[in-house]
Amino acid sequence: MSLIVQKFGGSSVKNADRIRHVAGIIQKTYEAGNDVIVVLSAQGDTTDDLIAKAEEINPRASRREMDMLLSTGEQISVALCAMELERRGVACISLAAWQVGFHSTSVHSDARILKIDTERIQSELDQHRVVLVAGFQGVDRAGDVTTLGRGGSDTSAVALAAVFKAQLCQIFTDVDGVYTTDPRIVPNARKLDEITYDEMLELASQGAQVLHNRSVELAKKYHVNLEVVSSLEDKPGTTVKEVTKMEKTNIAGVAKDTSIARVALVGLQHNPGVAFQVFDLLSKSNINVDVILQSIGREETKDITFTVHKKDMDEAVDILNEHKDALKFDHINTDDKIGKVSIVGVGLMSNCGVAARMFEALYEAGINIQMINTSEIRVSVLLNETDVDKAVRSIHAKFFDEV
Amino acid sequence: MSLIVQKFGGSSVKNADRIRHVAGIIQKTYEAGNDVIVVLSAQGDTTDDLIAKAEEINPRASRREMDMLLSTGEQISVALCAMELERRGVACISLAAWQVGFHSTSVHSDARILKIDTERIQSELDQHRVVLVAGFQGVDRAGDVTTLGRGGSDTSAVALAAVFKAQLCQIFTDVDGVYTTDPRIVPNARKLDEITYDEMLELASQGAQVLHNRSVELAKKYHVNLEVVSSLEDKPGTTVKEVTKMEKTNIAGVAKDTSIARVALVGLQHNPGVAFQVFDLLSKSNINVDVILQSIGREETKDITFTVHKKDMDEAVDILNEHKDALKFDHINTDDKIGKVSIVGVGLMSNCGVAARMFEALYEAGINIQMINTSEIRVSVLLNETDVDKAVRSIHAKFFDEV
Repeated sequence: MSLIVQKFGGSSVKNADRIRHVAGIIQKTYEAGNDVIVVLSAQGDTTDDLIAKAEEINPRASRREMDMLLSTGEQISVALCAMELERRGVACISLAAWQVGFHSTSVHSDARILKIDTERIQSELDQHRVVLVAGFQGVDRAGDVTTLGRGGSDTSAVALAAVFKAQLCQIFTDVDGVYTTDPRIVPNARKLDEITYDEMLELASQGAQVLHNRSVELAKKYHVNLEVVSSLEDKPGTTVKEVTKMEKTNIAGVAKDTSIARVALVGLQHNPGVAFQVFDLLSKSNINVDVILQSIGREETKDITFTVHKKDMDEAVDILNEHKDALKFDHINTDDKIGKVSIVGVGLMSNCGVAARMFEALYEAGINIQMINTSEIRVSVLLNETDVDKAVRSIHAKFFDEV
Repeated sequence: MSLIVQKFGGSSVKNADRIRHVAGIIQKTYEAGNDVIVVLSAQGDTTDDLIAKAEEINPRASRREMDMLLSTGEQISVALCAMELERRGVACISLAAWQVGFHSTSVHSDARILKIDTERIQSELDQHRVVLVAGFQGVDRAGDVTTLGRGGSDTSAVALAAVFKAQLCQIFTDVDGVYTTDPRIVPNARKLDEITYDEMLELASQGAQVLHNRSVELAKKYHVNLEVVSSLEDKPGTTVKEVTKMEKTNIAGVAKDTSIARVALVGLQHNPGVAFQVFDLLSKSNINVDVILQSIGREETKDITFTVHKKDMDEAVDILNEHKDALKFDHINTDDKIGKVSIVGVGLMSNCGVAARMFEALYEAGINIQMINTSEIRVSVLLNETDVDKAVRSIHAKFFDEV
């Protein structure tokens, strides 16, 4: 007997029809002789409706009360899905995070998982019940409800799979797996049968929206067998695991991100520690910085260029200007009409010529590169925002059509 | 410093406007220097919406999962009301039943309160926070969510007032107190300033819908000072307490109930224990019997007549017919076109002439009495359903207009 964790997102349980469909998948898994733990998100628009209710009353409500409010969404989902399983004669029980003992930090709206008690779930599994757990939520030391932030339900599912040493953790989505790039941009994008944790991580953080990188990090750490699979069609998805085919030579995929803006500090004095000062100021205002590039400027000065989320650009500029005297720079220039395109693949940087092929594709498409940034398994380029989709298509064609 | 428990029902929190109004009442009480515990029901139609969702999926869902589903309604109310108090700068916190430690039996959808932990609430009160508790819900020994059944939020409020020895438990409603009868039937019905627990109990069980009798029983048992007060207008309500004015000679009110049906077992043999057998059979099918009357019939037989809820009538008849041989009766006759009118008042039955005045009023109105039933503080008559409103008007006029 093996244990399988299955996670279904908000659109998969958005109405009675979809809940029936999801229950069918669960029933099939259960009747094949598996123990099943199910993790559900809130139904379709439930979370948005609850947020609208809160904002009508108090747009600056405390995160503690927002968590109290929003956590009802997942509780509704698990109760309704349990009712459908009951109708099908499948023994089951729904549990909220506090009933499981799903312990988290107290950082409301962005809590981290600390520990998951196994007693209640194990006792229900021992009674051959499907256990439906409300995703996205936890309970802190004070006994208050928390939520896990973006990608929370994926993370709930992977954490449960890790603690219960599940044979498989299936993340059901509206697509049927992880693609070499966004099929909406490149119609002949290919579904990957396998991908490594590291590749998935880079793809997720470079803009691929299939899995949140927190859940992938956790899966990698605890060696959870992860599968991204379609909730609509019954066919194989993409398996995420430690090592894939040994002889793999191609990249895993092409990702794009147009949510970024570029900020450049021009004409910085060569005083030591200036980089530390700049990024310390930004981090204290909770502004995340992505690509950082430092270039040697004219004789006695240098430039520091970095990217932030578009929404943070103005605040970043204000903060830096406030400290202009201490930081000693000449001026700031910004550009929020940029985008980033990345290729991801294990062994990419040790495989001569991969980066060059990417640049060749861009050259052939007549696209100008603003900045280049690399990691062990990724090459990213910054481009004009209007060039991004064309760049994805030309790079994808170079790596996947010519093979 | 005194402690006040305030309970607001579903219509009082049905939208953002009403929540703002309720928060105003709470703020005023808090800023007058009181500790405040607030109990809320689910918003207006939330419970109905959730039930509709469940029925679309499985009309025979387990009560355990229904409780899991429905309990989210009150959690949403307390979180939203807390947000409005936060906006007003009133320190506060919302708590679900499991966070309070509101322990109940495991009878899902109709659980009884066993014990309420004081630690969490007291610690929040000590920090000068208004504590908002989700009404209608509890948690059982297994850690499962329960709901308290009809009148549940009133009962939650009274139980909290009892445990915390509150100076006052205020039940806010759409009306401004307890009336001598239903103002929709008798426009000059009078609001009572005071009423005893026993009178309120009889009025509640005889059809007055202001307070559920479970909450009144609990208030009486623990000497909770209860007040029924308007959530719409700022004026005194009705106080429910042990003893009211000593020299009170009038009745407290007139109540009606048209939800009942009459069942008569005609021509029963005089075998001992037959009454026990009849009502034991009904109780095993969870059929509640109200008025019971036994009359001597012809020579060797007798009749037993009783009333049940209209919805239970057919089932009661079926059960009794199934056991016709054992019970030895001739036939059953039924009438579901009846109603009950009651007068309630402490000392009523020891005060000669009160019952007679009621019958006089009915005689003057030309209304025929089918059955009479009395308790220490109540006289009820069964009438044709079509006579009920006329009876209420004529009895009310006799006792309140002629005084």
